[in-house]
Amino acid sequence: MSVFESTYRVYWEDTDAGGVVYHARYLNFLERARTDCLLALGLGQSDLKDKSGQLFVVTRIETDFIHPARLEDELVVTTRVESMKRASMVFAQTIRRKADQQKLNEARVTVACLNSETFKPARLPTQLVAAFQNP
Amino acid sequence: MSVFESTYRVYWEDTDAGGVVYHARYLNFLERARTDCLLALGLGQSDLKDKSGQLFVVTRIETDFIHPARLEDELVVTTRVESMKRASMVFAQTIRRKADQQKLNEARVTVACLNSETFKPARLPTQLVAAFQNP
Amino acid sequence: MSVFESTYRVYWEDTDAGGVVYHARYLNFLERARTDCLLALGLGQSDLKDKSGQLFVVTRIETDFIHPARLEDELVVTTRVESMKRASMVFAQTIRRKADQQKLNEARVTVACLNSETFKPARLPTQLVAAFQNP
Amino acid sequence: MSVFESTYRVYWEDTDAGGVVYHARYLNFLERARTDCLLALGLGQSDLKDKSGQLFVVTRIETDFIHPARLEDELVVTTRVESMKRASMVFAQTIRRKADQQKLNEARVTVACLNSETFKPARLPTQLVAAFQNP
Repeated sequence: MSVFESTYRVYWEDTDAGGVVYHARYLNFLERARTDCLLALGLGQSDLKDKSGQLFVVTRIETDFIHPARLEDELVVTTRVESMKRASMVFAQTIRRKADQQKLNEARVTVACLNSETFKPARLPTQLVAAFQNP
Repeated sequence: MSVFESTYRVYWEDTDAGGVVYHARYLNFLERARTDCLLALGLGQSDLKDKSGQLFVVTRIETDFIHPARLEDELVVTTRVESMKRASMVFAQTIRRKADQQKLNEARVTVACLNSETFKPARLPTQLVAAFQNP
Repeated sequence: MSVFESTYRVYWEDTDAGGVVYHARYLNFLERARTDCLLALGLGQSDLKDKSGQLFVVTRIETDFIHPARLEDELVVTTRVESMKRASMVFAQTIRRKADQQKLNEARVTVACLNSETFKPARLPTQLVAAFQNP
Repeated sequence: MSVFESTYRVYWEDTDAGGVVYHARYLNFLERARTDCLLALGLGQSDLKDKSGQLFVVTRIETDFIHPARLEDELVVTTRVESMKRASMVFAQTIRRKADQQKLNEARVTVACLNSETFKPARLPTQLVAAFQNP
């Protein structure tokens, strides 16, 4: 897999009194896209937690809010892996408005794999490493 | 239209430390379903606000939380109109888990149509009345 | 304890593009008030889960959305216990705008006490029963 | 004003099924702190929008998620202005757990001042410039 693409609609809950999407909600759309990307690879995070005792946590985000999204917009999120280490990876993601492809948000998100009990670093699932190393 | 059906996935943002979906989030899923139902009728609420100066607001909810949803579950929401008045309507909605059709939530939601400036009651859009009166 | 009162401010995250608080968010304010009420009785729900293996879940809500709250409003929530059974209780709650005491929301919320592993009914904590039976 | 400090409690709505606070929610706490900081300076954003037609929007965030917060934790947020331009400013913020002062999150947040109708850059309110230039 090189780039994963998924689409989400903006609902009332995502907007604020400024008339546009509340800034922190873009992080929610980015997380949904990473979750859907993992699901597309057969890697459900419920299973990962219950069966392997592993959890992904976000450790760093750099993100630019370029243009506002509005109620009922459809947002296309692209997700790709920029780099991988033993126990962490960096995702490069963008959010575009489907209607005109206007870029709305760009982000680099560092995610660490942890033991869900001890919260100590854990090796990335081999399935994941394989998927992103052989695009 | 008699019953509108739409499907939503549960993401991390929807869950809480109890390990299941946070109770108030079911209302978000119900609202998304009403919005998607209106969109399916060609009735975007952005347009409704900008062009007709009208807004729908929820005035009453009765809801039973029957069974918990979990991370990555797919939720099927059914939406139908139970009754209509001049400036308000009652939706009957259910949320089921797609995998096994287990009913998770049941709700009666009263929605009023308001003038978006004055917040006074406004007549329901004719398009909406027509759609639900001729199923 | 007969009535517990607590105050919360409305932030951007609570509002939507209608310019007022998103309807489902009132349930969040109601839940914060129940949590703060329990904390005031010395009953932290983190401890309750970790030490007694118990969890409160909302099983039913009836709520009227009377008047909208706006950005930066301070909301006063009153919380009282209307009735108690062995493993559940009904809270009667109201939300008022602090500035003019205008009532914004009224709710009856049924909460069940469950075993946090099995999700089966569990007896309400004695501490809680004692507090609400001796006001 | 040099550093503004404000405290917020973690409720169920802020947590996720990992048992800790959902990562995007830290941005909500940061935003509440900026809003409370402005309110402390007499600068309500409702008024700012209604009277001056101005709106603050977040244009960039860099943030490190250092340690997880849990249900019922009290979070102390510090907010200070790192730099100001004509129509934007950079806030440096931290989130600490009140109980033991453990640092949980660190962020640099760029905020632009816009005309709320045209969404074009607008000069920062003089009141704000004065407050942060004379600490």
